[in-house]
Amino acid sequence: MTNDTLLNKIRQANPLVHSITNQVVANDVANSLLAIGASPMMAIAPEEMEEVTGFAEAIVLNIGTLTTEILEAMLIVGRAANQRGIPVILDPVGGGATQYRQEAVSILLKEVTVQLITGNAGEMAYLAGVDWSSKGVDAGTGMTSGKMIAERVAHRYQTVAAVSGKEDFVSDGQTTVGILNGDPMLTQVTGTGCMLSGICGAFLAVDKYDTLESTVKACTAYGVAAEMARDNQDVKGPGSFRVSLMDALYNLSEKNIHDKKNVKRYNANNSKEEDNE
Amino acid sequence: MTNDTLLNKIRQANPLVHSITNQVVANDVANSLLAIGASPMMAIAPEEMEEVTGFAEAIVLNIGTLTTEILEAMLIVGRAANQRGIPVILDPVGGGATQYRQEAVSILLKEVTVQLITGNAGEMAYLAGVDWSSKGVDAGTGMTSGKMIAERVAHRYQTVAAVSGKEDFVSDGQTTVGILNGDPMLTQVTGTGCMLSGICGAFLAVDKYDTLESTVKACTAYGVAAEMARDNQDVKGPGSFRVSLMDALYNLSEKNIHDKKNVKRYNANNSKEEDNE
Amino acid sequence: MTNDTLLNKIRQANPLVHSITNQVVANDVANSLLAIGASPMMAIAPEEMEEVTGFAEAIVLNIGTLTTEILEAMLIVGRAANQRGIPVILDPVGGGATQYRQEAVSILLKEVTVQLITGNAGEMAYLAGVDWSSKGVDAGTGMTSGKMIAERVAHRYQTVAAVSGKEDFVSDGQTTVGILNGDPMLTQVTGTGCMLSGICGAFLAVDKYDTLESTVKACTAYGVAAEMARDNQDVKGPGSFRVSLMDALYNLSEKNIHDKKNVKRYNANNSKEEDNE
Repeated sequence: MTNDTLLNKIRQANPLVHSITNQVVANDVANSLLAIGASPMMAIAPEEMEEVTGFAEAIVLNIGTLTTEILEAMLIVGRAANQRGIPVILDPVGGGATQYRQEAVSILLKEVTVQLITGNAGEMAYLAGVDWSSKGVDAGTGMTSGKMIAERVAHRYQTVAAVSGKEDFVSDGQTTVGILNGDPMLTQVTGTGCMLSGICGAFLAVDKYDTLESTVKACTAYGVAAEMARDNQDVKGPGSFRVSLMDALYNLSEKNIHDKKNVKRYNANNSKEEDNE
Repeated sequence: MTNDTLLNKIRQANPLVHSITNQVVANDVANSLLAIGASPMMAIAPEEMEEVTGFAEAIVLNIGTLTTEILEAMLIVGRAANQRGIPVILDPVGGGATQYRQEAVSILLKEVTVQLITGNAGEMAYLAGVDWSSKGVDAGTGMTSGKMIAERVAHRYQTVAAVSGKEDFVSDGQTTVGILNGDPMLTQVTGTGCMLSGICGAFLAVDKYDTLESTVKACTAYGVAAEMARDNQDVKGPGSFRVSLMDALYNLSEKNIHDKKNVKRYNANNSKEEDNE
Repeated sequence: MTNDTLLNKIRQANPLVHSITNQVVANDVANSLLAIGASPMMAIAPEEMEEVTGFAEAIVLNIGTLTTEILEAMLIVGRAANQRGIPVILDPVGGGATQYRQEAVSILLKEVTVQLITGNAGEMAYLAGVDWSSKGVDAGTGMTSGKMIAERVAHRYQTVAAVSGKEDFVSDGQTTVGILNGDPMLTQVTGTGCMLSGICGAFLAVDKYDTLESTVKACTAYGVAAEMARDNQDVKGPGSFRVSLMDALYNLSEKNIHDKKNVKRYNANNSKEEDNE
C-alpha cells in the first residue's frame, strides 16, 4: 500500500465534504472533518442541494435523525452527485430499526448509486438480509460475522461496504480487509461511527477511483487516532476521550499510521495475510 | 433505600431511552445516557414514532426547540408509550415563556399520561400556576419555593414532579424528597437540565413502578456526578466542567453515591428527616 | 474607549440573546453566551417568534443550516425586533455559496433592518459585491481586503459590518477598526464565527446605541479569550482548544482585555492609529 499519503493529500487539498447528517452529531462530524484536514459543509435545504454538488468533492448521507424533508434533500444531492461523478457515502444509522428507515434506505439505494455503505454490524446486517439479533449468522463456519456481512452488502449492492466493530471489515465483494485498530471507548461516545463515515468522505474525495483502499485508509487512520486518544493520560472517560480524539485526528501523521496500523487482507480461501509493511 | 442498585441495573440492562429533545442539547443528552449506561435513541420523524415504542424502555419529551412536526412526533410516541406501559418523562423547557409553549404543554399533558415532569423552578412554577417571577410565592411560610412548586405540580397533574435548583425537590404530591447534591456550575452549561431528564429516563426504564424513588435516585446520581466533576482539579470553567461531568457519569459508582448523597425526606408536617444512611 | 465595562454590564444584566442559529453549532453558541454572562434562548418555531421579542434583548440570525421554515421564523422575529428597537445581528454563513442562500440573505436584508452583519471574508465579499474567490480585490492598492470588504458592506447596507480573519475589521462605513487579537486555531473549530456573532449579540444587548464600539468590544473580548485558550498548556489540538475557549470566555476579565487588546483605528486617509491605551 503506497497510498498512505492520502492523509497528506487531504491536508493539502482540503476537500469540501458535504454531509447531510443527523442533528445529534452534526457538530462532531464537522469538527472531525476539520481535524483531518477537510472542509465541512452541512447544508440541509432541498433547494440548495443540487447546487452544492458544484463544489462538493464527496457527499455523506447519514439517516440518524431522518425526516421527510431530509430524505428529499438526500435524494436531490445524491442524484446530482451521481451525474457529476462525486462519490456518495451512505451511513444507514439505525437502518433496520423501523419500517420508515427500511423504506428510506431502500429508496436511497434505488435512486442513488453509492460508492460506500458504512455502518455497525446491526445496521449492515439488515442490509445484508441476515438476522443479526440472533448473533449466530456464522456459527460453525469459523467466519467472522462482520466479515460476512461486509461481503454480502458489497455483493448485494455492488458497492464497497464497511462494517465497524472490534475488527472493522471493508469489502468490495471480492477483496476483504480487516482493520484491527481502534479502541472500545469509541462505543461510549455517540456519533463516533458518524464521524468515521464523514472521514471516509474526506478520503474518497482525494481518491475516488479506489474506494476499497480509500476506505481502508480512512478506517485505519481513524482507528489509530482513537488509539492515540486513549493513550493520552489525561483521558478519564468518554468526555475527555472525545476531546482527545479530536486532537488526535488533528495531530495524526503518516508516521503514526505506519507505526500503528494493524490491517489484514483476506484472500479467496479466507486465510489471513498481514499487511503492515 | 435499598434500590441504590438502580445504577447497576442500568449498566447491566442498557435500557433504550428514546429522547425527542432539542437540537441544542441532543448530543449531550445522548452522551450522558451512554455515560450512565443506557442506550440513547434520538429519532424524530413522526412516521417512525409508533414503532419506536416497540423497543424503547422510556420516552423523554423535551420541548426546547419545539416545532409543529416535533410536537406531532411527541404526541404519537407519547400515546403509543402509554398503551404499552412505557414511562414517559416531560421536560417542559421554557414552559411558560410563550403562548405557543403553553399550548404545547397543555396538549401534551392532556393527550399523554406522563410519569414524571421535570424542569427548573421557573418552568415548573408555570405548570403549578404560581407566579415565579415574583420570587415570593412562599414568603412568610418558611416553605421552600421549589418544594411547594414540586408538590403543586405533582398534585395538579397526578404525577411525579421534579424541580431542579440549589436543592432539587421530587414529589408525588404526598411524599417530597429534597436532594442537596449538585454544583452551581451546572447552571453555567446549557442542557444540564435536559441531561438530567434524560437520565431520569434511564432510571425509570429499570424501575418504572416507583417513579418517586427512581427519580430521587436519578437526581442524586446526577448531583453526585456533578460534585465529582467539580472536584476534578483540571476543571477551569464550564467547558472543562462539561467534559468532566461526562467522565464522572461514566465513572460513577454506587459507592460514590452512598458516600456523598445528601437527601432529605419531608413528612406531612414538613419537618425534615435525613436519609443518608 | 471607556466602555471596556461592557463585559461587566453583560455579567450584571445577563441579557437574553435569542439566536436562530444552525444545528451544527447551536450548543456552542448557547454555551459561549452563558460563558460570557448572557442568557441564551434558541427557539425556532415561527409561532413563538413574535412573542420572543417581548423579552429578548438582542436577536442573532445565522443561516448556516437554513430551511424555508427557519427563514420564515427569522423574518417574523426580525420584523418584530425592529418594531421594538431590539438589535438584530445577521451572520450570513455560506452567504454567496448557493442561489438559495443569496436569495435568503437578500430577503432578510430587505425585510429586516440589521444593526450588524458579521461573517468571514468570503461571506462578506459576496455582500460587498466583490469577487473574493479571486483573492485579489485589493491587489496593488495596499489596502487590506477585509478592511475594504467591511467598509463596502457597511456602506451598501447602511449598517455596521464585521469581517473576521487574521485581522478582524469592524466598520460603520465611516470609521473602521482593526482587531488583531485572536488565534489561528479558531479556524480549526467549526462554529467559532457563529459563537462570535452570538457574543456580538450579548454586547449589543447592553449597548445598542453605539453598535460600532459594542462590536469592537465583542471582537476584542473574543480574540483575547482565544489567546488565553491557546496559552493554556493543556491545549493539544482543536478539541482541547474548544474546551479551553469556553473556559476562557467564562474567566475573561476586563483586566485581561485591557492587557492584551490589540486594536487599531483607521482614519479617512487610511493611516493607522493604535488604540491600546
